[in-house]
Amino acid sequence: MSLNTFGHLFRVTTWGESHGPAIGCTVDGCPPGIALTEADIQPWLDKRKPGQNKFTTQRKEPDEVRILSGVFEGRTTGTAIQLMIENTDQRSKDYGDIAQAFRPGHADITYHQKYGHRDYRGGGRSSARETAARVAAGGVARAALAALLPGMRITGYMVQMGPHAIDRSRVDLNIVGDNPFWCPDPVAATDWAAFLDALRLSHNSVGAVIEVIAEGVPPGLGAPLYGKLDSDLASAMMSINAVKAVEIGDGMAAATLTGVDNADEIRMGPNGPEFLSNHAGGILGGISTGQPVICRFAVKPTSSILTPRQTINQRGEEIDLITKGRHDPCVGIRAVPVGEAMMACVLLDHLLLDRGQTGGLRGILG
Amino acid sequence: MSLNTFGHLFRVTTWGESHGPAIGCTVDGCPPGIALTEADIQPWLDKRKPGQNKFTTQRKEPDEVRILSGVFEGRTTGTAIQLMIENTDQRSKDYGDIAQAFRPGHADITYHQKYGHRDYRGGGRSSARETAARVAAGGVARAALAALLPGMRITGYMVQMGPHAIDRSRVDLNIVGDNPFWCPDPVAATDWAAFLDALRLSHNSVGAVIEVIAEGVPPGLGAPLYGKLDSDLASAMMSINAVKAVEIGDGMAAATLTGVDNADEIRMGPNGPEFLSNHAGGILGGISTGQPVICRFAVKPTSSILTPRQTINQRGEEIDLITKGRHDPCVGIRAVPVGEAMMACVLLDHLLLDRGQTGGLRGILG
Amino acid sequence: MSLNTFGHLFRVTTWGESHGPAIGCTVDGCPPGIALTEADIQPWLDKRKPGQNKFTTQRKEPDEVRILSGVFEGRTTGTAIQLMIENTDQRSKDYGDIAQAFRPGHADITYHQKYGHRDYRGGGRSSARETAARVAAGGVARAALAALLPGMRITGYMVQMGPHAIDRSRVDLNIVGDNPFWCPDPVAATDWAAFLDALRLSHNSVGAVIEVIAEGVPPGLGAPLYGKLDSDLASAMMSINAVKAVEIGDGMAAATLTGVDNADEIRMGPNGPEFLSNHAGGILGGISTGQPVICRFAVKPTSSILTPRQTINQRGEEIDLITKGRHDPCVGIRAVPVGEAMMACVLLDHLLLDRGQTGGLRGILG
Amino acid sequence: MSLNTFGHLFRVTTWGESHGPAIGCTVDGCPPGIALTEADIQPWLDKRKPGQNKFTTQRKEPDEVRILSGVFEGRTTGTAIQLMIENTDQRSKDYGDIAQAFRPGHADITYHQKYGHRDYRGGGRSSARETAARVAAGGVARAALAALLPGMRITGYMVQMGPHAIDRSRVDLNIVGDNPFWCPDPVAATDWAAFLDALRLSHNSVGAVIEVIAEGVPPGLGAPLYGKLDSDLASAMMSINAVKAVEIGDGMAAATLTGVDNADEIRMGPNGPEFLSNHAGGILGGISTGQPVICRFAVKPTSSILTPRQTINQRGEEIDLITKGRHDPCVGIRAVPVGEAMMACVLLDHLLLDRGQTGGLRGILG
Repeated sequence: MSLNTFGHLFRVTTWGESHGPAIGCTVDGCPPGIALTEADIQPWLDKRKPGQNKFTTQRKEPDEVRILSGVFEGRTTGTAIQLMIENTDQRSKDYGDIAQAFRPGHADITYHQKYGHRDYRGGGRSSARETAARVAAGGVARAALAALLPGMRITGYMVQMGPHAIDRSRVDLNIVGDNPFWCPDPVAATDWAAFLDALRLSHNSVGAVIEVIAEGVPPGLGAPLYGKLDSDLASAMMSINAVKAVEIGDGMAAATLTGVDNADEIRMGPNGPEFLSNHAGGILGGISTGQPVICRFAVKPTSSILTPRQTINQRGEEIDLITKGRHDPCVGIRAVPVGEAMMACVLLDHLLLDRGQTGGLRGILG
Repeated sequence: MSLNTFGHLFRVTTWGESHGPAIGCTVDGCPPGIALTEADIQPWLDKRKPGQNKFTTQRKEPDEVRILSGVFEGRTTGTAIQLMIENTDQRSKDYGDIAQAFRPGHADITYHQKYGHRDYRGGGRSSARETAARVAAGGVARAALAALLPGMRITGYMVQMGPHAIDRSRVDLNIVGDNPFWCPDPVAATDWAAFLDALRLSHNSVGAVIEVIAEGVPPGLGAPLYGKLDSDLASAMMSINAVKAVEIGDGMAAATLTGVDNADEIRMGPNGPEFLSNHAGGILGGISTGQPVICRFAVKPTSSILTPRQTINQRGEEIDLITKGRHDPCVGIRAVPVGEAMMACVLLDHLLLDRGQTGGLRGILG
Repeated sequence: MSLNTFGHLFRVTTWGESHGPAIGCTVDGCPPGIALTEADIQPWLDKRKPGQNKFTTQRKEPDEVRILSGVFEGRTTGTAIQLMIENTDQRSKDYGDIAQAFRPGHADITYHQKYGHRDYRGGGRSSARETAARVAAGGVARAALAALLPGMRITGYMVQMGPHAIDRSRVDLNIVGDNPFWCPDPVAATDWAAFLDALRLSHNSVGAVIEVIAEGVPPGLGAPLYGKLDSDLASAMMSINAVKAVEIGDGMAAATLTGVDNADEIRMGPNGPEFLSNHAGGILGGISTGQPVICRFAVKPTSSILTPRQTINQRGEEIDLITKGRHDPCVGIRAVPVGEAMMACVLLDHLLLDRGQTGGLRGILG
Repeated sequence: MSLNTFGHLFRVTTWGESHGPAIGCTVDGCPPGIALTEADIQPWLDKRKPGQNKFTTQRKEPDEVRILSGVFEGRTTGTAIQLMIENTDQRSKDYGDIAQAFRPGHADITYHQKYGHRDYRGGGRSSARETAARVAAGGVARAALAALLPGMRITGYMVQMGPHAIDRSRVDLNIVGDNPFWCPDPVAATDWAAFLDALRLSHNSVGAVIEVIAEGVPPGLGAPLYGKLDSDLASAMMSINAVKAVEIGDGMAAATLTGVDNADEIRMGPNGPEFLSNHAGGILGGISTGQPVICRFAVKPTSSILTPRQTINQRGEEIDLITKGRHDPCVGIRAVPVGEAMMACVLLDHLLLDRGQTGGLRGILG
């Protein structure tokens, strides 16, 4: 089962390889009547676009999205929306020498073992280029969310690069677009620039932690068990290339807390329940509480580096391999808009699921 | 969408509430001809059974599983297997006083807001009692895996209780059954006993980190994107009650590594490729490498504690609440067999998916 | 893939064999807050119950349904509803002699070939006894529909027994419960009684055509292509044991019409569009029109007959086989409440799907 | 829920409108290593291509398919295959006058009511043009089937046009490509030409019945209940535009048979079981028997005719409407390759599902 689809009612099916003619996705189940043009999607792709500074791959891709179906006279029709992005800068020669080699940390060896045949050019289907399709789908989800939940806001940012975490006391979400790292801490952003430049010049790379927050999510999205909002977020984020961990709220740190400390106590505010803390990350029992939904994920360092690593090739020969090409020294940077897109898709999906089952019914308080 | 089902081909649908007459699950898609009786499932339930020592809830449940369908003359028929566990020790009086109150850290408030109507007895559907059904389903998965992948072994254990992690140099997986914590480090096990006893007596609780390892997983299970083995593991583990984070391989720590360090270098061994390290946790590009598959998850502290916490009730009144009843001071302990069960279900599902698409074809090396 | 589940948002998973301890189903995705007790479901099971007259099997089953989960204090909670019906009259001795034989027209040979191992008692999983679980699920769907679409009415009836069709000019839906055949034509009902009695005494059986009509279905349920209302009805009805054909509206006869005759012309009525005919059976382009939804299906004759038929056994020996036991001479009779149940499940599912995607938005006319 | 996907493991998601820039589909779950180029798919599209004779629409579409992903160096990689067909002959002016009108027999009114907004050009998403994407997907399925089941053959043909059925004694499947109607009876083919020409000139259209037969299907494909082979075929065929009924084997006529006549008796042949008849259409209990799988479906007459019909427009005004444009007088003709494509997709899907669950295990006979 190849399973290139995610989502329940708002469902995204992606396709395409790094060096094929195009990549794209089919967005199915979008509500009808939503205002949508390419101009609503393009800005999100531009956030993820390669080659914008020295900290991301120098591949030049305009990443221009075309809507091929499902939109008529500027509004969605409720039928399948096809989004296509042509690949324009496919330098296959960059990759010719690794056609038979298995790059350590890459899916080359597992694709070979599973399928026996793979598009080796630039990673083929396993390339992070696939995430452009997710960002495009996220653009559609955001347009629908803007209509259905006008006050909702999704923001992604990097909270750690290698061992260097931000200082939470300095966080300002309004500045995340002002530096190349989507960093909300201005001091960390400066430090990271020097740190990453040195790594890059030493032919190395590094991992990162991304946080995505959704504010203005109403209570009641999600479900008790296998359609949990957090379970679907975990699946969505872990499906992004290079992600190795997903946290909700306090995440791994929840293990260190006591029950007394972890309890998000509740008081009555003027507009309903108010929580005195948010260890839960806005989700209890799989269902949103109305607090900000907070999700973090760890991205491993870029596996494509200019430092030689030991590996084998398809003939079973042991070799040393340098991965040339145009690679991100910290692939976590471009994962920020991808994480935002996945959050948007999951939230819209659960909004539709909830109104499907409950009709938007909400339990009465007071 | 309630969505009480997980899995693609091997699919488990659970049902039941903490204080209803019974809980159970339908296991669909199991291969036919697998030897299976209640005696194959019961030992896994016994591992999870409450009341076995002072560190778990004193609720007395024999948790005896009955097979109601899908098995004939001791072997699976390939049709739906219904497993039922009767609830025998439902002391509803324990819970009567919280019928209208929202226990902090529990799903009471979100269930109320979403559904407007809930079975409040013992958490109802949100009770960790549901995990007994998962463990029973995992028993079926293990029986099928024993037939299809005889050398495969799944082991779960606790690697951290509160702030106290094990010492990896002392790990011995053969002793995890010798202490109440499924702890593979004998020193930590002793320390945790004192630590948890003190917490329990102070009316508090604590979180934990569980690790589940699967050895003997063949390469080739999983898929590139939304059917990734790691994505499905993340979803499966995050769907367990009280889980707030999931890690694969190095997990969150992958963010701190450089590309040079993170590369799991490959050499040729006598039986095929051998990796010199396993930062990846046995999964590359969503597909198993043949190395041990390693998954960790964090369990938050039990929210039901005897220390009063501030909250509200359905009438919108602010109250202080003590959650009486028979609760685990560290619910992570009983999450160990649950994590094992989810690992078994996910691996069997992907084994069936793989032979569905590829027929078990494996790429040739050498 | 065993796939014992149908439905998208309102999803039913059935389990159980003819001669196992029980049969049942999990109903998932039901809206919360729906009034539901066993008494709401039992009447539909009683319609299908065997042994009510000489024209159905003499097996005595009270078919008493128990709700094991998902309902609290008389209302659905929005979580999984487990329904169980115990088997009480399992005379396994009736079936012992056919354990190794493949009854012609039955699934014995195909189950054996696919699974290599089957519960042969009374057909095991392939027994029409499974339809009791569908009828129970349909009872839940009807309860939800009664709340969400109060004016909607589903009626099933037999329109043909063997070669003998009803006379449409005599149809009165109010009399379908007055004869053993759910026949809306009083003259046909009398004729069928004599016809079927003679067949029964001659150790034979006969097929039938069932029609199910849903009145009061709002426009807008369904979807353009693979989630078409008619496509889902076709799948649902064809999944009933012994069904060999499904028709929507004019069905097969649509092939004989010209475009001029087939056009259901539209006029404006006081409450919106009115169609001058209903060749379409209430569905255009996969979406309901607001007219009655009309579905028919053909049920083959009962394969279990006392007349010897040539067949083979598992040892590959050629034998002549008489199928003893307690069988319906026209299994179509008891298919009537089953068809109604499937209609109810499909309509509720599409009602939830529609409000999920569109929020119940309806295009403006005028 | 828009649900533009069908299939379980071999899954096809279609997209595109009649007058948009292109249509296409994503084919997911195809086995890897299957030889595939555009030249393997194009012949099937050419069979369905419009404008080949006076009996089909005069729209000129080359219907050239492009493979955009999932195939590398002439073989499938096991990842998502994107197929795109550009629309080149979109004369939107043909349709401008019906932008606000609801053509009787078309989905105009139901799309409007459900979505409030639709692409009215040429039927938009409801146009039978969508079936080109199915035929392309079917081409992929056929390529995989050719590799996995080399002896299997799928043949579609028209068995009835309007009231004129073929004479079964004259059937020769080798001549179906020799006349414009895919008719296997040479006499009927001649008669139909005259009949249809007269209808066409009188501004009328007519329905048809298509039969699709699959020979060489092994026993064991399918599943007992909701994943039945016949249930999935019913869903697949009913999802084709204008289809109003689906039959398996004897279909509706099964209702008229007695149990004695309907029993497909079994004898032992040199290569295993042999059936003396095939009333069942090759499927018992949802699972293939090894006999030819036979499926029929009725296609209603083309609704777009030059004879005026009464209807209303979006403003609620009553009008008389002539549907100009380039329409098929018998849309059933071009449904033949579509039915074949759906049969190929369903059979491949079930082949993969079967080997997923059973590993291709077959019960032993003798």
